[in-house]
Amino acid sequence: MNFRPLHDRVLVRRIEADEKTAGGIIIPDTAKEKPQEGEVVAAGSGARNDAGEISPLEVKAGDKILFGKWSGTEVKIDGEDLIIMKESDILGIMA
Amino acid sequence: MNFRPLHDRVLVRRIEADEKTAGGIIIPDTAKEKPQEGEVVAAGSGARNDAGEISPLEVKAGDKILFGKWSGTEVKIDGEDLIIMKESDILGIMA
Amino acid sequence: MNFRPLHDRVLVRRIEADEKTAGGIIIPDTAKEKPQEGEVVAAGSGARNDAGEISPLEVKAGDKILFGKWSGTEVKIDGEDLIIMKESDILGIMA
Amino acid sequence: MNFRPLHDRVLVRRIEADEKTAGGIIIPDTAKEKPQEGEVVAAGSGARNDAGEISPLEVKAGDKILFGKWSGTEVKIDGEDLIIMKESDILGIMA
Amino acid sequence: MNFRPLHDRVLVRRIEADEKTAGGIIIPDTAKEKPQEGEVVAAGSGARNDAGEISPLEVKAGDKILFGKWSGTEVKIDGEDLIIMKESDILGIMA
Amino acid sequence: MNFRPLHDRVLVRRIEADEKTAGGIIIPDTAKEKPQEGEVVAAGSGARNDAGEISPLEVKAGDKILFGKWSGTEVKIDGEDLIIMKESDILGIMA
Amino acid sequence: MNFRPLHDRVLVRRIEADEKTAGGIIIPDTAKEKPQEGEVVAAGSGARNDAGEISPLEVKAGDKILFGKWSGTEVKIDGEDLIIMKESDILGIMA
Repeated sequence: MNFRPLHDRVLVRRIEADEKTAGGIIIPDTAKEKPQEGEVVAAGSGARNDAGEISPLEVKAGDKILFGKWSGTEVKIDGEDLIIMKESDILGIMA
Repeated sequence: MNFRPLHDRVLVRRIEADEKTAGGIIIPDTAKEKPQEGEVVAAGSGARNDAGEISPLEVKAGDKILFGKWSGTEVKIDGEDLIIMKESDILGIMA
Repeated sequence: MNFRPLHDRVLVRRIEADEKTAGGIIIPDTAKEKPQEGEVVAAGSGARNDAGEISPLEVKAGDKILFGKWSGTEVKIDGEDLIIMKESDILGIMA
Repeated sequence: MNFRPLHDRVLVRRIEADEKTAGGIIIPDTAKEKPQEGEVVAAGSGARNDAGEISPLEVKAGDKILFGKWSGTEVKIDGEDLIIMKESDILGIMA
Repeated sequence: MNFRPLHDRVLVRRIEADEKTAGGIIIPDTAKEKPQEGEVVAAGSGARNDAGEISPLEVKAGDKILFGKWSGTEVKIDGEDLIIMKESDILGIMA
Repeated sequence: MNFRPLHDRVLVRRIEADEKTAGGIIIPDTAKEKPQEGEVVAAGSGARNDAGEISPLEVKAGDKILFGKWSGTEVKIDGEDLIIMKESDILGIMA
Repeated sequence: MNFRPLHDRVLVRRIEADEKTAGGIIIPDTAKEKPQEGEVVAAGSGARNDAGEISPLEVKAGDKILFGKWSGTEVKIDGEDLIIMKESDILGIMA
C-alpha cells in the first residue's frame, strides 16, 4: 500500500459484518450510529503536542479496531475502498 | 473479554436497576437523564496530557460506577450488550 | 456513605431553605436561578492539570456550600436524594 | 461575614448610585449594560493555572470596584443583598 | 485620575475626529465599524499567562492609540466620558 | 515559483483525476466531499507551538498528497491555478 | 509612517490588481473571497505565547504578501487607505 496518513490519521479497511462468525463482535442492528469493525492498514507518525514533540499513535498496522460508523473520509486507493480517520475516532482494539 | 478501549475510554457492563435491592443506589424515576449503575469491564491506558505523557485512568476493571444514562456508544461483544464511554462520563465509584 | 465522586466532582446534600432561621443565608424568591445551600458529603480526589498532576479540590466533606440551583445531576443513594456536581459549580463556602 | 468565595470568585456589595456625590464616578443613564460601583466583601484564594499553582486574585476585601451591571449571581447573606462574581467581571479598582 | 484598570484592561479617553488637522489620522466616513483615535489614561498591570506570571501590557498612559469604534465599555469618571477596553482591542500606537 | 506560504500553510497544485491511470488513486464519484490528489509546490516553515518554537511541517515540496476537496483558498500565481491550504487539511502522502 | 501595530498586527498597503502585468499574480475574478496582493508597511513586535515570551512575526516591512480580501480593518493614515490585519490573515509572502 502506497499511502502514509499524516499526523494522527489512520488508514482503515472496513471489515464487513457478514464476514464475522461465532464468538466475534456483533453490532446491534437498531443502533443508528453503530460502531463498525475494521483493520488498520497504515498509521500516521503521530500529532505534535504543545511541547512540540510528536506523540506516537497507540494503534499500528494490522490492529483490529472498532470505530464509529460515520467516522472519517472514504477514499479508494488501488481500487479498494478505504477510510482515513483520526485515531481519536477509534473506540478500541480487539486483542 | 477480547477488547481494549483506546486512550481514556472505558468498556462498561450496565447493571439493571431491577437487580438492586435494599441499601443499594436507586435512581429516581422522573429524572430525564437519570444516572445508571454499571461495572467497568476494561479500561484504556489513559489519555496523553499536554506534556505528552499518558495520564492513567482512575477507574479499573471491576469498579462499580455511576454514569449518565445517555453516555457512550452501545456495542455487542461476544453476544453481550456493553457500552464504550469516556472516563469523564463517569460520575463516581461505589466503594 | 459508599460513593466516591470521580475527579473534580462533589457529592452534595441539599439543605432545605425552610430549615434555616435568623442569621442564616436566605435566597431571594424572585431570582430564577437562585443559589441553594448544601453540605458536601464526599469530594473527588481532584482533576488532572495540563502538567499531568492532580490538583486537589478546595472543598471537603462537611463543608457548607452555596451552589447554583440547576447545577449537577440528581441521584438517590441509600434512599437519600443527593446531587453530584463539579467543584466549579460551587459558588463559595460558608465558614 | 461568614462566606468565603471559591477559586476566582469575589463577594461584592453594590454601592447605590444615589449615594454618590461630587467627584465620584457617575454612570451614564442611557447605557444599556452600565457598569456599577461596588465594594469587595470577600475574595477567593485564586484559580489554579495550567501549572497547577494558585494565582492569587488582584482584588481584596475593601476594594472599591467597577463591574458590569449584569455580572454575577445575586445572593442574600445575613439579610443583605450581595453579588458573587468572577474577578474577570471586575473592570477596575478605584484608588 | 483615581481609577486602576484590572488585568489587561486599559482606560482610554476618546480623541474626537474634529480635533484632528492636516497630517493626522483621518477615519473613513463610510466604514461601519470605523476605528477611532484615543489616548491611554491608565493601563492595568497585565494578565497572567499559563505559567502564572503577569505579562505587562505594551501600552502605557499617554500613548495615542487607534481602537475599534465599538470596543470596550463606556464609563463616566470624575464627570468625563471614558472607555474601559482590553489591550487586545487596541489596533496600534501612533508614534 | 516565487511564493512562500506563511506558518503552517502549503501551496498545492491540483492533479486532475483524468490524468490518473491504472494502479493510481481513484476517488469515488458519489462522495459529496471527495478527497483530491495534489502536489505540494511550496510549504511554510511551520507554526509556532505553545513553547514559542516553530514545529516544522511534515510535508515538503514535491510530495503527492490527498486533501479534502473544499480545503484551502484558490489563487492564480504566474497564470496557474493553485491552492493555499493548512497542513492539517492534508489527509496523507502517497509514497 | 507614524503608526506601530500592536502585538501580532500588521499594517498593509493594498496593491491594486490593475497595476500588475505579465508574470505577476492574477486573482481569479469569480472567487467570492478572492485573496489580494499587498505590501507590509509596519509589523507589530509579536504576540506573547503561553510561556509569556514574545514570538516575533515572520513578516516585516516591505514584504509583498497575499491576504484574504475581507481580512482586517480599513484605516486612513496620513490620507492613505491602509489595512490593519493579524499576521494569521496573511496567506504567504511573494519572494
